[in-house]
Amino acid sequence: MKRIAVLTSGGDSPGMNAAVRAVVRKAISEGMEVFGINYGYAGMVAGDIFPLDSRAVGDKISRGGTFLFSARYPEFSKLEGQLAGIEQLKKHGIEGVVVIGGDGSYHGAMRLTEHGFPAVGIPGTIDNDIVGTDYTIGFDTAVSTATSALDKLRDTSSSHKRTFIVEVMGRNAGDIALWAGIASGADQIIVPEEDYDIHQVVQKINQGFANGKNHHIIVLAEGVMSGDEFAAKLKDAGNTNDSRVTNLGHILRGGAPSPRDRVLASWMGARAVELLKEGKGGYAIGIQNENLVESPILGTAEEGALFSLDDHGKIIVNNPHKARLDFADLNRVLAQ
Amino acid sequence: MKRIAVLTSGGDSPGMNAAVRAVVRKAISEGMEVFGINYGYAGMVAGDIFPLDSRAVGDKISRGGTFLFSARYPEFSKLEGQLAGIEQLKKHGIEGVVVIGGDGSYHGAMRLTEHGFPAVGIPGTIDNDIVGTDYTIGFDTAVSTATSALDKLRDTSSSHKRTFIVEVMGRNAGDIALWAGIASGADQIIVPEEDYDIHQVVQKINQGFANGKNHHIIVLAEGVMSGDEFAAKLKDAGNTNDSRVTNLGHILRGGAPSPRDRVLASWMGARAVELLKEGKGGYAIGIQNENLVESPILGTAEEGALFSLDDHGKIIVNNPHKARLDFADLNRVLAQ
Amino acid sequence: MKRIAVLTSGGDSPGMNAAVRAVVRKAISEGMEVFGINYGYAGMVAGDIFPLDSRAVGDKISRGGTFLFSARYPEFSKLEGQLAGIEQLKKHGIEGVVVIGGDGSYHGAMRLTEHGFPAVGIPGTIDNDIVGTDYTIGFDTAVSTATSALDKLRDTSSSHKRTFIVEVMGRNAGDIALWAGIASGADQIIVPEEDYDIHQVVQKINQGFANGKNHHIIVLAEGVMSGDEFAAKLKDAGNTNDSRVTNLGHILRGGAPSPRDRVLASWMGARAVELLKEGKGGYAIGIQNENLVESPILGTAEEGALFSLDDHGKIIVNNPHKARLDFADLNRVLAQ
Amino acid sequence: MKRIAVLTSGGDSPGMNAAVRAVVRKAISEGMEVFGINYGYAGMVAGDIFPLDSRAVGDKISRGGTFLFSARYPEFSKLEGQLAGIEQLKKHGIEGVVVIGGDGSYHGAMRLTEHGFPAVGIPGTIDNDIVGTDYTIGFDTAVSTATSALDKLRDTSSSHKRTFIVEVMGRNAGDIALWAGIASGADQIIVPEEDYDIHQVVQKINQGFANGKNHHIIVLAEGVMSGDEFAAKLKDAGNTNDSRVTNLGHILRGGAPSPRDRVLASWMGARAVELLKEGKGGYAIGIQNENLVESPILGTAEEGALFSLDDHGKIIVNNPHKARLDFADLNRVLAQ
Repeated sequence: MKRIAVLTSGGDSPGMNAAVRAVVRKAISEGMEVFGINYGYAGMVAGDIFPLDSRAVGDKISRGGTFLFSARYPEFSKLEGQLAGIEQLKKHGIEGVVVIGGDGSYHGAMRLTEHGFPAVGIPGTIDNDIVGTDYTIGFDTAVSTATSALDKLRDTSSSHKRTFIVEVMGRNAGDIALWAGIASGADQIIVPEEDYDIHQVVQKINQGFANGKNHHIIVLAEGVMSGDEFAAKLKDAGNTNDSRVTNLGHILRGGAPSPRDRVLASWMGARAVELLKEGKGGYAIGIQNENLVESPILGTAEEGALFSLDDHGKIIVNNPHKARLDFADLNRVLAQ
Repeated sequence: MKRIAVLTSGGDSPGMNAAVRAVVRKAISEGMEVFGINYGYAGMVAGDIFPLDSRAVGDKISRGGTFLFSARYPEFSKLEGQLAGIEQLKKHGIEGVVVIGGDGSYHGAMRLTEHGFPAVGIPGTIDNDIVGTDYTIGFDTAVSTATSALDKLRDTSSSHKRTFIVEVMGRNAGDIALWAGIASGADQIIVPEEDYDIHQVVQKINQGFANGKNHHIIVLAEGVMSGDEFAAKLKDAGNTNDSRVTNLGHILRGGAPSPRDRVLASWMGARAVELLKEGKGGYAIGIQNENLVESPILGTAEEGALFSLDDHGKIIVNNPHKARLDFADLNRVLAQ
Repeated sequence: MKRIAVLTSGGDSPGMNAAVRAVVRKAISEGMEVFGINYGYAGMVAGDIFPLDSRAVGDKISRGGTFLFSARYPEFSKLEGQLAGIEQLKKHGIEGVVVIGGDGSYHGAMRLTEHGFPAVGIPGTIDNDIVGTDYTIGFDTAVSTATSALDKLRDTSSSHKRTFIVEVMGRNAGDIALWAGIASGADQIIVPEEDYDIHQVVQKINQGFANGKNHHIIVLAEGVMSGDEFAAKLKDAGNTNDSRVTNLGHILRGGAPSPRDRVLASWMGARAVELLKEGKGGYAIGIQNENLVESPILGTAEEGALFSLDDHGKIIVNNPHKARLDFADLNRVLAQ
Repeated sequence: MKRIAVLTSGGDSPGMNAAVRAVVRKAISEGMEVFGINYGYAGMVAGDIFPLDSRAVGDKISRGGTFLFSARYPEFSKLEGQLAGIEQLKKHGIEGVVVIGGDGSYHGAMRLTEHGFPAVGIPGTIDNDIVGTDYTIGFDTAVSTATSALDKLRDTSSSHKRTFIVEVMGRNAGDIALWAGIASGADQIIVPEEDYDIHQVVQKINQGFANGKNHHIIVLAEGVMSGDEFAAKLKDAGNTNDSRVTNLGHILRGGAPSPRDRVLASWMGARAVELLKEGKGGYAIGIQNENLVESPILGTAEEGALFSLDDHGKIIVNNPHKARLDFADLNRVLAQ
């Protein structure tokens, strides 16, 4: 393989730039040329493709966001889009692609490979909800940003003996809430993977203040409901404490990546190039038990594939990422 | 004066602890004893009063919030509350009080002094909207926190060429928005002190992207309207860009105070004790042109007083704090 | 077991407070009482022992250092010291101890257990050089602080096209240097676990600038030699570039623990209490492949023990922690 | 004036990029063209000059260091160098220059103006030692970085009851030490502008620990002597406490500029362009009492000039920047 390309897709996450840098420099060290694709699959189809050299990724390892830009592009799920993308890649003499992003990005990589064009995936999203990996690039940074915000809210919560409901990102996944919740000593953590009893939530608030606590912080994953809705529900359930809602929102997506995310991104980026070199299109990289692993994106569960197709051709996830619900238990013990 | 007390009142702000520390240690160095009052005027009336020594304020200079707690207590605007407070103070042998907080806190200090009980005010709030001072304790930290969040949002805004509307605190005052807006290179800053044309706002968004900008960030002071309302208004005015709203909210109130806020708090806290020692009850401290000044809280404008009473006994502000609207002009030039 | 104690020993590390908090709250939830011991083994022998309740560890999770203080106390390697310590513990009705610290702390725990007094160890040090665990509490924070400093030095290095030699802690271990080196995009990483050729180091500096790099940063683990010595050696080897030396030193030991260190500390602290409850004195906790493990501190290698005694009664380390030298290889590829 | 240039000179400081951005965008808004000069006066003489447009300074406001690079270039003090520089500027059609840097940079600007080529100065250095301004660009950031490091050292100092001697930059000026010292609650601050008695320093260390303090931190400006030398002197004077030396060194020069430095840089950069437009070469901008001022770089003291020439043609500083020694007094009271 003489020339490869790299793109970022879906929601941006801190560390994507570090991964692009690693792809570029590793490929160059292997004697390949590298091209960047702007705006993910949309840019691929539009031919927004340009050469990247070693200097082009200088000073990028510590930058948040993605300098290749990102976009959601549902049109790429259709055959027409996929073929148009491949045509553009071939026009530039590109023989393989590294795709950094979430589930949707993996599906694109899978389709490209099916059409004979090798593509590999790297998990880049703050939500930590991607199959086949313990951690995604950006998760550690998002937890860090959330924890830092929670520390600040605790200052002001303690000053006024207030209750704060703090909404964090995580549409289907509670990992950010769970990690940042434990790390900040949150009083309660509410995630989509676990049921809760709203009356118990109220009771714990009352009990905390009765026990002499100065603050009460509830970390809420957005996948459950919005902070405002949760506050209304609390009130309906009889909560009379002075409450405030804060939504950390998109702040979690930005900022310089944490060292851990930079290391992970560097490691995965370099491995992705090796996979392409080995001709392993259709694989996605993950970290499991502190080691890099690669899994076929599509196949049967027996083959260790991340996704399978059911009888109707619908994509099913073989072994979905599981949130650390043991941390929820741990926090119930420690947040006395 | 042999024994004084200190309290924090109103919304908490970073640096209040540093101010309390300075009051305590300066007073001790002057041979006085110092008592702390929890929960502001509410605690005063309730007798939540206790001795503070030098060690009690150790390691407090860098802590956010206020370890004396704060509360709003409208009851203190009535004579009954004021007299009850003085009774408690006298019971503890206290002869003077330092009050750290906003406008409401100053009014309380004024009433105490009118009743023969000397009290001095220190401006503590993140909003920078207090009369008689260029800067309040907590403002620099809030600007810093807001700028840091805006830097992060810019990462993700740039990755997706999105528009972000970022709401920052400031009920009547645009200073946080103005300073953080310039510091983060925001594209537009909307503050209550200045009119804006919603159609021009939309036009600037379009023009920015047309000029090759990757992001468009609008900093909005809460005193104008909420971010969600502003986004709706933008849409009504024809904005078709992909927009997101983020409300930085109470995060701005927390966190370790910035060095500048710690220095300001230390300086003002020490000066407050000197004022009490000089028998200057009824004054508030400010910083103007880099020097500490003290102004009578109540009196006539000619006397340099911060507040006067009109013919109906209503409080009027003599020389309200002015936002830096020249910074709004500067930003219009620099945010090209 | 009705009453346990907890101490911190050796060099302090960020997250020790979070571990103490977890020990205290977990023990209380199990119906035990908890005592704190100040100044490690020195305080144990001196009887500096006091009760801790749930509120005593409130707001401690985010604090750097150790509020139980720490000290090195070589006298505890002698029988006399150990027996004096046990006597004090018994005097307070204490039946088990959690020891948070490094190798020396483990040896103390081992001796206590040998004398029939159950003690368990938790790995707390920034150096990440403790046997039986992939990560120590404090390491992630130290890497984060080092990376942040390296990012800053890169700004000024780039402005002047200078070479910086940056010394980081790590007497026998290069992990801080390796992780922070990759994370900051350092040009070279020099660790005690790996040989280097000083002439090659010089050549790489020259080559980097020749390739158009604006900066050259060498991260040096203190275990190799001091930064000043290394700079002298570079000069002797013919380096003519403008060089500066910075020693990050003790800064790496302080600061609010990173979320990951807080989570790890919380998790390990709770597990330590379970071990004592199960009667498992003489064990140390570690994290391996993302799971908590416990290993006998002393025994044979076959039993999975961390340390063994040779024929002369000297302690030997069975399976020493290995630095990530694969990261050194990775960095050589990425730092082009 | 149709075309101007901008350069950075001397030691880099955080906020230089923000100042360059302001110069560029303000000039463009005034209908001028702008060129950048790499490596200060060295690049001017070498003709390392290139056009800058609005996008070229995008995303630069938050970046540390200077993307125009900086260099010391003593050759510019000679007539030959100055004329060579002017020749290059004229070759590019440049009619005026903005120089961002310290004293040496001002002297260069003065010489250019004397030769009929208008140049204006902006104070950029972390040391806050420039005549004609209360604050230099970069000082607030350096204080912030130093305070953050001191907070961390205090964690570890408190854990071990150690004494730390912390050396901060400031060759002739103690401002960083004074501000960061107060802000971090340092126990002692030693600056070149004030005498000290080494025996009193030792006595204060002993007294602090005797009073129940857990830490003792001495902030030392490099202009006094090095930290190692100071530690040796302390020992000679009888200090027996466990002491550690840390040199914060070049870290203080890097990092994202603080909001205040970004605002100051933006404001000064825009004003510099106005000065050139008004034909006011030979002036330097400063901030005094919260307002921008401009002073002639060379002239008599009566004219308000920053520098004068004595009878032998030697440069004398008319009204040197004074360190805040009142803060040293304040700290002696508060650091009990």
